Amino acid sequence: MNALLLILDGVGGLRSNKGTALEEANKPNIDELAREGATGLMHVIGRGIVPGSDTGHLAIFGYEPKKYYHGRGPFEALGAKLELKHGDIAFRANFARVEKGIVVDRRAGRIETSEAKKLEPLINGIEIDGVRVIFKSTTEHRGVLVLRGEHLSPDVSDTDPHKTGVPPLKAKALSDEAEFTANIINKLSQTIAERLEGKKANYLLLRGAGRMHKAPSFYEKYGLKAAAIAGGALYKGVARYVGMDVLEVEGATGDKHSNFKAKFEKAKEISEDYDFVFLHVKATDSFGHDGDLEGKKSIIEKIDKLIPIIKDYFDLIVITGDHSTPCIYKEHSGHPVPLLAYGKYVRKDETMKFDEFEAMKGGLGHFKGLELMDMILNWLKKQKKFGS
Amino acid sequence: MNALLLILDGVGGLRSNKGTALEEANKPNIDELAREGATGLMHVIGRGIVPGSDTGHLAIFGYEPKKYYHGRGPFEALGAKLELKHGDIAFRANFARVEKGIVVDRRAGRIETSEAKKLEPLINGIEIDGVRVIFKSTTEHRGVLVLRGEHLSPDVSDTDPHKTGVPPLKAKALSDEAEFTANIINKLSQTIAERLEGKKANYLLLRGAGRMHKAPSFYEKYGLKAAAIAGGALYKGVARYVGMDVLEVEGATGDKHSNFKAKFEKAKEISEDYDFVFLHVKATDSFGHDGDLEGKKSIIEKIDKLIPIIKDYFDLIVITGDHSTPCIYKEHSGHPVPLLAYGKYVRKDETMKFDEFEAMKGGLGHFKGLELMDMILNWLKKQKKFGS
Repeated sequence: MNALLLILDGVGGLRSNKGTALEEANKPNIDELAREGATGLMHVIGRGIVPGSDTGHLAIFGYEPKKYYHGRGPFEALGAKLELKHGDIAFRANFARVEKGIVVDRRAGRIETSEAKKLEPLINGIEIDGVRVIFKSTTEHRGVLVLRGEHLSPDVSDTDPHKTGVPPLKAKALSDEAEFTANIINKLSQTIAERLEGKKANYLLLRGAGRMHKAPSFYEKYGLKAAAIAGGALYKGVARYVGMDVLEVEGATGDKHSNFKAKFEKAKEISEDYDFVFLHVKATDSFGHDGDLEGKKSIIEKIDKLIPIIKDYFDLIVITGDHSTPCIYKEHSGHPVPLLAYGKYVRKDETMKFDEFEAMKGGLGHFKGLELMDMILNWLKKQKKFGS
Repeated sequence: MNALLLILDGVGGLRSNKGTALEEANKPNIDELAREGATGLMHVIGRGIVPGSDTGHLAIFGYEPKKYYHGRGPFEALGAKLELKHGDIAFRANFARVEKGIVVDRRAGRIETSEAKKLEPLINGIEIDGVRVIFKSTTEHRGVLVLRGEHLSPDVSDTDPHKTGVPPLKAKALSDEAEFTANIINKLSQTIAERLEGKKANYLLLRGAGRMHKAPSFYEKYGLKAAAIAGGALYKGVARYVGMDVLEVEGATGDKHSNFKAKFEKAKEISEDYDFVFLHVKATDSFGHDGDLEGKKSIIEKIDKLIPIIKDYFDLIVITGDHSTPCIYKEHSGHPVPLLAYGKYVRKDETMKFDEFEAMKGGLGHFKGLELMDMILNWLKKQKKFGS
């Protein structure tokens, strides 16, 4: 038996003068799954806790974030297909433009991907005090930077000031043992600035320092051969971190214009090759951050139309979010996300549609993200008995 | 955004030939909040666990009672405005009358407050074997006694026999390391008896030994500036323990004749000065202990009439209890307490009124007291994201 886990990022909402995006959307296919299956409310990390996208996915995949989350950097790096080693310190990096010591553009004029790629060799391979720098340019101004060596610590502050009109920040040690690392970063930023001198992108801002820790693979934990279909680097990174095969899909960009249909076609195509397919849609979250209810609703309607593509190819379909991003909140929130499960071994409840309010009455009740994988294994009849 | 947490002490009940006090009470204002907000059931410490008033409040404020509860004494002492130091051992104290070695009145004929106050200097400041005694007389026969010094332990039994017609008890060491402390208490009781000889109140009974432990403040934990409005010393003490400002309100006595209206007026008055106001009403619990359903109901009705005073002054209103005290139980019970939340960021559910039975269908489901503060922070949009 195989399962599809469809994560509509940030799908949970709050009502304002209108219903939530899930309530407002015309989504007959998803509602049919709810009617034929069961729903409930998932507290992804815990009641009232606001998940990040990284911690939310870790919890849903059954990896306790308090244990396995060590900063965003490693997930970004893994998402960019950098091979990380245990102990590596990884950062999200931005090409920026600095004039007279002041950050004037944090995205270096949205430098083109091909142009940014040419700058990669100027940074990749730098060595400072025995620490090796690995750098990869990804999309436009975005990139990832990894420090590999001895005595490194992730307890360092960002050099990205997160705004323009101010100088780039000096990395500061947030613990005694991080002095060496902060020093490396500050020397490195200087070296990079020298090498980029005269370019349009003449500075590299760093943020989200994190240390790579090994985790048991999804297959080791659950015996499920798993694949991920996602556009955004962070989601690919989390999937790689837990050892899923990350599949490339043409046009899956992780933005509002992603080729959703291609992602669903891919899920169908590989349904016999994998026990578990994680399909991630980012745009619901993006519209939530924008406070754009119509946009969020339109994505749900687009996804709804694609459900028939995969419906008969999976024995279990689970649809949920990694957190709520209500349009009236414009941020991730700690409200629980509705979850729908449809399959032969799911106990059907009386809920008739898929939204936050119907799910309050759902037969699955309230549960935590960390509990989901065990529920899925049980629905797949692949859970091992505890006891005899 | 600011929050009001209204605790109706012991509000949860059980049906008998009548409904519970919450069901029987005519409470249109509270029911309106339920209708416009959401309800659920809170297991204050855990399913089936019977909370004390101290442990219940600790859990609700997000302080794990197993970690932060070390006996009632320190809360009584803090409630009486004694400044405690880490390591102090505090007791609840009763002036009593002993004749021919037998306790004949555990309250020394309900000695008047002013008369008891005159006895304070006879006890306060005593030193025995290097241990200093701090004593404060509070209301009528009540007082608190603190031991300050080295090598003290809270593992000592009460000297209060909790009944008359028997001698005061000797304090016993409940662990090896408490021998010194038990010895001090027995010497001290003798010394106090000598100093009180010939008075109407001629003995001081001690109970509820507890050691003062420091805790992170409410502000440190949540970033919320918090105030407490309560009559009873214990509740003031718990509030002081977590670093809330405890406000004095004329006529707020913590009994059945407390000036409830003055407390609500005070909450309104300070609503702009604080992020979080804890308003405590004791009388619901007192009537529960008495088995007086009419009395308990009448308090709920009185409180209901005061809701309009504060309704428009808080962005979030949460109403619940610290435990159940059902009239047919006459004691604290481990049944969950209904909880109501009303505010902009609360997901409205379909419950139409506020009671134990409607809350079973509430959209908040079942949760623990320790989870409440995270839920409140999320409803206030003041919860920090975990992850990125």
